Amino acid sequence: MTTHIGLLLYPGLTQLDLTGPYEVLHRLPSTEVHLLWKTLEIVESDSGLGLRPTTRIDSCPPLDVVMVPGGFGQMALMEDAEILAFLAREGERAAWVTSVCTGALLLGAAGLLRGYEATTHWHYQSLLPMFGAIPKEGRVVVDRNRITGGGVTAGIDFGLRLAAILAGEEHAKGIELGLEYDPEPPFRCGHPRIADPKLVAAVEASFADRLAERQANVAKALETTASSHV
Amino acid sequence: MTTHIGLLLYPGLTQLDLTGPYEVLHRLPSTEVHLLWKTLEIVESDSGLGLRPTTRIDSCPPLDVVMVPGGFGQMALMEDAEILAFLAREGERAAWVTSVCTGALLLGAAGLLRGYEATTHWHYQSLLPMFGAIPKEGRVVVDRNRITGGGVTAGIDFGLRLAAILAGEEHAKGIELGLEYDPEPPFRCGHPRIADPKLVAAVEASFADRLAERQANVAKALETTASSHV
Repeated sequence: MTTHIGLLLYPGLTQLDLTGPYEVLHRLPSTEVHLLWKTLEIVESDSGLGLRPTTRIDSCPPLDVVMVPGGFGQMALMEDAEILAFLAREGERAAWVTSVCTGALLLGAAGLLRGYEATTHWHYQSLLPMFGAIPKEGRVVVDRNRITGGGVTAGIDFGLRLAAILAGEEHAKGIELGLEYDPEPPFRCGHPRIADPKLVAAVEASFADRLAERQANVAKALETTASSHV
Repeated sequence: MTTHIGLLLYPGLTQLDLTGPYEVLHRLPSTEVHLLWKTLEIVESDSGLGLRPTTRIDSCPPLDVVMVPGGFGQMALMEDAEILAFLAREGERAAWVTSVCTGALLLGAAGLLRGYEATTHWHYQSLLPMFGAIPKEGRVVVDRNRITGGGVTAGIDFGLRLAAILAGEEHAKGIELGLEYDPEPPFRCGHPRIADPKLVAAVEASFADRLAERQANVAKALETTASSHV
């Protein structure tokens, strides 16, 4: 039996949200990792990196794991009926429904986080309750079959946690050692909890527009969804 | 003045060796990150991920930073005269000559590590002296203008260290926080120093053929280079 893992590869994603978990997950035995998009044409990340999808969403096999990465392109998909229907359908039947960073907002828009504890990038935690999710601080948050990772680099921790669930802890440990995942963040400031408050304030200020934009985007998406259910 | 950073994007690379640093470095101000290969056709990583080069090596501007990632495809390049000549030429004039993982072996083959302290993936450290390099344990090793990172995930730490050198520590700290780089390796076994010796033995055994292959590959490359200098 092959385990089918689908990572959504969409224009404007933050590529490390996807490439981090991908590096872990493709090492699992009897596993096929699909990079899913509407077409097989090259997709550009928010930083301009061109990545090739492997599988069209309209021809992908039933997924055991659905994973949605984050990135500013996520906003454009919040009212994309085709993508939301795909996520809702696969999310319903998949064994694991997962995200990294602001990918959680897309899970939320597809109605998949209602009543679940979840996390996202630290700067966007406040948006989770708009979808009925319960924000929880944590590098990786597991609630029943929902697994959500924090911002960007949390995808590697997420991938290893998922690897242990799918293939057992010994296998995941072998991958952690093989990838030499013994990190030494040079400045120990990767979360507001441990960073200098002045640095946090500066980064929050530089991201303020994006938070406002995302908030408006979520509100609009929820309105559209609500009116489509009248 | 634009800083030109060139990352070698070759067939069979380990994609996270490149995508980790890329995610950090593209956030630097006044910086252009080039993904370099012989052609602009899609390049496949050792895991099958298709990535798009941005710049051909025969038309790239003078580089301020040269970075070579690792991966099994590195072996095929150890006697590739075009690539070695490119690395030697850019390595000579670049301000920083760098690698992640087994990318160090390509720097070595291009004659760029002679007399320098350097690191690579933990499993391949023993190969560094073959190029006259001085192996040094460390997540990121800096010796004069050579910066070498350890295995795969070390590329993120490497990228942040380089970001601080190029754009200042405050900028690098902002990126570390923005990428939420506050890692929690689930099993704390990402280096033989901290892993259960039984796990290390198992992973070493599974990598043994590759070490032997790489050793033979390095020996052959050095022989060819030596005879071409007769």
